[in-house]
Amino acid sequence: MRKIHVIGIGAGDPDQLTLQAVKALRSTDVFFILDKGEVKSDLVQLRRDILDAHIPEGSYRLVEARDPDRDRAAGGAAYSPAVGDWRSARADIYQRLIAEELGEDESGAFLVWGDPALYDSTLGILEEILERGAVAFTYEVVPGISSVSALVARHRTGLNRVARPVQITTGRRLAEGFPEGVDDVVVMLDAHQTFRQYADEDIDIYWGAYIGTPDEILASGPIAETAPRIERLRAEARDRKGWIMDTYLLRRHPRG
Amino acid sequence: MRKIHVIGIGAGDPDQLTLQAVKALRSTDVFFILDKGEVKSDLVQLRRDILDAHIPEGSYRLVEARDPDRDRAAGGAAYSPAVGDWRSARADIYQRLIAEELGEDESGAFLVWGDPALYDSTLGILEEILERGAVAFTYEVVPGISSVSALVARHRTGLNRVARPVQITTGRRLAEGFPEGVDDVVVMLDAHQTFRQYADEDIDIYWGAYIGTPDEILASGPIAETAPRIERLRAEARDRKGWIMDTYLLRRHPRG
Ligand SMILES: C[S@@+](CC[C@H](N)C(=O)[O-])C[C@H]1O[C@@H](n2cnc3c(N)ncnc32)[C@H](O)[C@@H]1O
Ligand SMILES: C[S@@+](CC[C@H](N)C(=O)[O-])C[C@H]1O[C@@H](n2cnc3c(N)ncnc32)[C@H](O)[C@@H]1O
Repeated sequence: MRKIHVIGIGAGDPDQLTLQAVKALRSTDVFFILDKGEVKSDLVQLRRDILDAHIPEGSYRLVEARDPDRDRAAGGAAYSPAVGDWRSARADIYQRLIAEELGEDESGAFLVWGDPALYDSTLGILEEILERGAVAFTYEVVPGISSVSALVARHRTGLNRVARPVQITTGRRLAEGFPEGVDDVVVMLDAHQTFRQYADEDIDIYWGAYIGTPDEILASGPIAETAPRIERLRAEARDRKGWIMDTYLLRRHPRG
Repeated sequence: MRKIHVIGIGAGDPDQLTLQAVKALRSTDVFFILDKGEVKSDLVQLRRDILDAHIPEGSYRLVEARDPDRDRAAGGAAYSPAVGDWRSARADIYQRLIAEELGEDESGAFLVWGDPALYDSTLGILEEILERGAVAFTYEVVPGISSVSALVARHRTGLNRVARPVQITTGRRLAEGFPEGVDDVVVMLDAHQTFRQYADEDIDIYWGAYIGTPDEILASGPIAETAPRIERLRAEARDRKGWIMDTYLLRRHPRG
């Protein structure tokens, strides 16, 4: 039976790979690397560096494919399939890779950024392929250090306050309002710096971009004074590198 | 200047240590191990095993101390200081350890279960000690695989559904009601199987105990039929081992 490893590789620092991930890399015959387009090629390079660092060349095969995903900024309005369509398109590609590139008794791996459990489609896609029934395989998930864990570690703070909850959400959701019932909110996938919407509230922000990489930038403090600083840092970095990945924690203080 | 590493060691599987954590272990002179009492001695043993596996004996010192924390079941009503008091008591101990057991140019480490960012007091305590100003040190946090990441990896599911939020909370909070604004909720620190309160809702539960250890138990499915099974498994395991650590994800289906 074919076997697939879905391996969380951490969110930028190659040392954030777990020992379990290294073992999984070493027992993999074929790596599938999906390229999301030029702006993300740094991330593809990081995956290659991880392979180079941990497994002897020649002991594995590397299969690269073009991901149907498109950078929103680059693709623009001309290309925006519904999430479901996009996922099926991706499942078609993954299915072909597994069926054609992986021998019956071989093991393949997808290297997933951060933790495969957070805002990543790989597990959903593998389930979709299994449901279709055209190719059979087993799969295992190797958890990784998420950008969320990496963010708060760098800021040396916790995700939750004592005995209190924390929510992880998206920029789009945050734009609809501060989540109910929580005062600690981690925001991912925010292309619009939605934190600015809350700049007059009694909130501390802990922000990080390119966390764990040599380009890492951190900023934290009361949101009123920190938001403009983040805007500046973010714009400069984006100009310089052509893309940005950032995450932040909003910590609201009790009223009164 | 004294240096402290707060090292996340994963939630049970020694292979969930990151390479960064292994490097931090190897650069540590003194390990502080806090013992929470007999029922948790398996966890102290696991920390010792991790040290044995990764660093040569004789290259470090091990300092053990009794944690002021008390197992609730064992301590009962006679011992229940307010959280603040307990934290200060702990800060006293940590401060003494750092001041007396760590040389001026040495580095010490606290090995934290899972990810130091989730329901762990170590960072708060170090901040409290620094504020007191009696002993100076710098500290760094090494993120770890949390029991939350480990749970969903074992169940091969994500934490969030596409573009939706996820909340991480405690059993005590869940007892007050299903959190607002989210349908995916991870529950930790639940001594009362609070999920039973929601057994007649359209919810799937993904449960795990002793995740990552040889005693690991997993169960998942619609909550109505899975809750009684978990109750049984949990009672058996608790009887056998004398203590239990479990975490679960509740995934509510949209109404209608
Ligand atoms: C599609 S999600 C994938 C998240 C990933 N699975 C994880 O566990 O971090 C991409 C989002 O993760 C966050 N992110 C990932 N890596 C990051 C990094 N190195 N620094 C800051 N944010 C990062 C950003 O919010 C980005 O929009
Ligand atoms: C004080 S909190 C510490 C959490 C830890 N920092 C983490 O990242 O997992 C303890 C709670 O974590 C969860 N937990 C920790 N290790 C676990 C394991 N191996 N299996 C299941 N649950 C675990 C349980 O919900 C337990 O009540």
